[in-house]
Amino acid sequence: MFRISGQSYIAGAWVSPESMEFQSFNPYTKESMYGFTSCGTDEVEQAASAAARAFQIYRSVGGAAIGNFLNVIADEIESLGDQLLEICDSETGLGLVRLTGERGRTCGQLRAFGALAIKGEWVQASIDTALPDRAPLPKPDLRRMMLGIGPVAVFGASNFPFAFSVLGGDTASALAAGNPVIVKGHSAHPATSELFARAMESAISKCGMPDGVFSLLQGANRQLGADLVKDPRIQAVGFTGSEGGGRALMDLAAARPQPIPVYAEMGSINPLFIGPKTLEIQAASIAAGLSGSVCMGTGQFCTSPGLAVSVSSEVFEAELKQKLSETPRGYLLNPRIASSLQESLKRMRSHPQVEWLNEDDFEEGSMTPPNAVFKTSGSTFLGDASLSEEVFGPATLYVECDDESQMMEVARNLNGNLTASVHADEDMELAAELYIVLEQKAGRVIYNGYPTGVEVCPSQQHGGPYPASSVTTATSVGAGAIVRFARFVAYQGTPDNLLPAALKNANPMGIYRLVNGEMTSGPI
Amino acid sequence: MFRISGQSYIAGAWVSPESMEFQSFNPYTKESMYGFTSCGTDEVEQAASAAARAFQIYRSVGGAAIGNFLNVIADEIESLGDQLLEICDSETGLGLVRLTGERGRTCGQLRAFGALAIKGEWVQASIDTALPDRAPLPKPDLRRMMLGIGPVAVFGASNFPFAFSVLGGDTASALAAGNPVIVKGHSAHPATSELFARAMESAISKCGMPDGVFSLLQGANRQLGADLVKDPRIQAVGFTGSEGGGRALMDLAAARPQPIPVYAEMGSINPLFIGPKTLEIQAASIAAGLSGSVCMGTGQFCTSPGLAVSVSSEVFEAELKQKLSETPRGYLLNPRIASSLQESLKRMRSHPQVEWLNEDDFEEGSMTPPNAVFKTSGSTFLGDASLSEEVFGPATLYVECDDESQMMEVARNLNGNLTASVHADEDMELAAELYIVLEQKAGRVIYNGYPTGVEVCPSQQHGGPYPASSVTTATSVGAGAIVRFARFVAYQGTPDNLLPAALKNANPMGIYRLVNGEMTSGPI
Repeated sequence: MFRISGQSYIAGAWVSPESMEFQSFNPYTKESMYGFTSCGTDEVEQAASAAARAFQIYRSVGGAAIGNFLNVIADEIESLGDQLLEICDSETGLGLVRLTGERGRTCGQLRAFGALAIKGEWVQASIDTALPDRAPLPKPDLRRMMLGIGPVAVFGASNFPFAFSVLGGDTASALAAGNPVIVKGHSAHPATSELFARAMESAISKCGMPDGVFSLLQGANRQLGADLVKDPRIQAVGFTGSEGGGRALMDLAAARPQPIPVYAEMGSINPLFIGPKTLEIQAASIAAGLSGSVCMGTGQFCTSPGLAVSVSSEVFEAELKQKLSETPRGYLLNPRIASSLQESLKRMRSHPQVEWLNEDDFEEGSMTPPNAVFKTSGSTFLGDASLSEEVFGPATLYVECDDESQMMEVARNLNGNLTASVHADEDMELAAELYIVLEQKAGRVIYNGYPTGVEVCPSQQHGGPYPASSVTTATSVGAGAIVRFARFVAYQGTPDNLLPAALKNANPMGIYRLVNGEMTSGPI
Repeated sequence: MFRISGQSYIAGAWVSPESMEFQSFNPYTKESMYGFTSCGTDEVEQAASAAARAFQIYRSVGGAAIGNFLNVIADEIESLGDQLLEICDSETGLGLVRLTGERGRTCGQLRAFGALAIKGEWVQASIDTALPDRAPLPKPDLRRMMLGIGPVAVFGASNFPFAFSVLGGDTASALAAGNPVIVKGHSAHPATSELFARAMESAISKCGMPDGVFSLLQGANRQLGADLVKDPRIQAVGFTGSEGGGRALMDLAAARPQPIPVYAEMGSINPLFIGPKTLEIQAASIAAGLSGSVCMGTGQFCTSPGLAVSVSSEVFEAELKQKLSETPRGYLLNPRIASSLQESLKRMRSHPQVEWLNEDDFEEGSMTPPNAVFKTSGSTFLGDASLSEEVFGPATLYVECDDESQMMEVARNLNGNLTASVHADEDMELAAELYIVLEQKAGRVIYNGYPTGVEVCPSQQHGGPYPASSVTTATSVGAGAIVRFARFVAYQGTPDNLLPAALKNANPMGIYRLVNGEMTSGPI
């Protein structure tokens, strides 16, 4: 058991900046708990300079050492035991069942990236051997692979306090690629963040890694994040959160003397389309499935389905209303999300063309919102861009279209999304038309399913067109996430002793390489 | 033979915007030649709306049709015959030998991307089949591949009027990925650009492609490029040119409501490091090799070596001076490059700590600059950031360091570069130290060679840390360039008839796919 110190962890040292205090908040009791102080420019400077120094060591320790390090980090997280779950539950209201699952996923991610680092094939090694006698010019020997880029800034997300926070997917993939990480901890779960830093401290010590490979900067002000992104030693940013927050970081990064990539996973309304004939037959089961997806995690998932698009159906409307109303209220993560949801619900309630089908109270100060379903017409939705804004919480908007052609019009007018779903077993022609549009609007198109629950596997794509993601080609879930924090380097005519192991003639790592256009794990 | 009309080509129509006229310029005779008018907002609107419509057709024609289209484009370029070479030579002064080679490379690029499109493996298809009985949750079927992103804006480069201009590598890779292209032609070779559009017009007609798949907007003002980048239908930008020009486009793209990627290949000084012991033995041969690389194409390559870093050597200095002075002067591309080089040479000449070893005249209005070598000390170079600025033209700066440790200091202080070269056969310890630093500073590290001459093969990396490139992970040369203009989409639980061919069970394209973690070209 650790005592929560309220400190930040900077390159091996626990520090208490002298600044405004902030507290973590218990959504169950509405009481303030642990006190922390925010880091400032001095702490960013210390963390960044230590990270830059550490990079020169860490980038060369090799995949086996990095893989072991990631495995030890996972072990140390598990060693935190129930204290981690209990403190996090008290800071987030997510419940022990969900947090136990999320801890498993988080440790699984670390070990999966550890395995990638150990195997070493993620560097995409490619070798074209020389043709010294080629006419008119000899062909040089060229060999290419990916290398880490340098210190990475990671912003913890409030809705995934384990899997997308201090030691979550962004940190794990950045470390696996050979980069130090500086985390700006989310101010809604600072005690949870501190425990992760304790686990990391222990892993760094056990593995003999350079202290600067990791820092956790606690803070409750935007300036800290801005300072971190602007620091010239930071080479990339990982972020999961709101569109406003992500865009602010993107703008700062783009305005640097050296612009850097920001991998931000932001807003998404995750539309669900239901074919008219399919709705006739499956109204009750789809209403039940949609309702379950909307209410999961009190609607605080980036893949929560905020839009159901179909034609008019009394049965669907009644079933959806009933299922959502009978689902017990859950807890929201923090007062900021609660007040933002209050605003959103107020806006929807006062919209003259929107009906709140199961209108219910959500009092000022309450942390347990109603599970809400709204209804509007296709033409209203098409004419009012504000109805496409994400409502973060357990709410969905049923868009009642006149016909299939209006449903297609809604599809064509969508912004970028992480996911889009289609239920159309009885409407295959419409399904085909929808797929052509939705694959241009979303990172993942789902058939007969619901968007929450993101399978971690090589074919997963978690990232879609803006504003769902800042870099639409990138995925923040799955093995593909590692390449966000690496770049290609080619070596021309280079003697074997100067080449990285992955490119040496003997192939000492035994990895698959593209050699003169063919994949092989043999030597040259 | 075509008559040069001075028009732009927008979605199948030749148009003459009413605006200020500009002329193409002959560097040999210093005479103005063909007259053109610049496109404006109306023409951007026409081209972009046609491209958006064409995308909905072109994205679905299939890899075989796209591959055939790219092959026909290459054929049509060859059909332009000597007129293309002669007109381009008169607009650029690059000479028929170089242009014949560059035409071959350009057609080779088109055919190589055509072959990629036909084979269809570039989409990186990946399939994870369902596990419906998995506990606690069933695993869904997930399949992922790359798709085109939409209309791409390409900016022609003055120094590669074929290979990185209207139908160059950016256009070829964007078309291959299934995207329409709108080219902003470079104002220094508009007649050359027009001929390429004639070839394209014929290819579009022969292949029955939608007219909007290609437009050429001629123009001699920056506003046109800005309008194009800001158009909401444009989804990515390809650019080769100056750091100032590239950064301006990056800033515009980052400030859009929907930010888009700009793949800009910009400034690079391409340092060459020579170990002290190696220099003692190889001074003459390295001076000859360096001189050849500096003078190639009148120094107008992005990979031109602008910096030679070593210790003091009278032999090297004398040889370099002699070789550069005895190389005949070449022609610069256009008056803007000439006056910019005049400014740079003036700045170097007036620098109190820089010596122009072979000082020679470069009169106002001349298009044939001297091949220049400057010398300065390591400490001067380290103390004056202006000496790290690219001098575009046949010039190099010999940085005479006190010792190896100062050479390392110079290496550590470099900005991002496309290339860095090392000559160190007799200095292997220094070489090892240099490699560790230079692989962090450049996209390609060259041993015992010179940076000009970019081999086109899978292991090539043409793109380095900023300011060499805007997106340091991307390459603008080689097969890897295609992924710049595509994004991943995952399909979950999708019936076979709704899946793209690359992901169908039967694998009708016969491509290698990652199926449940193993590469296979078989069916599911």
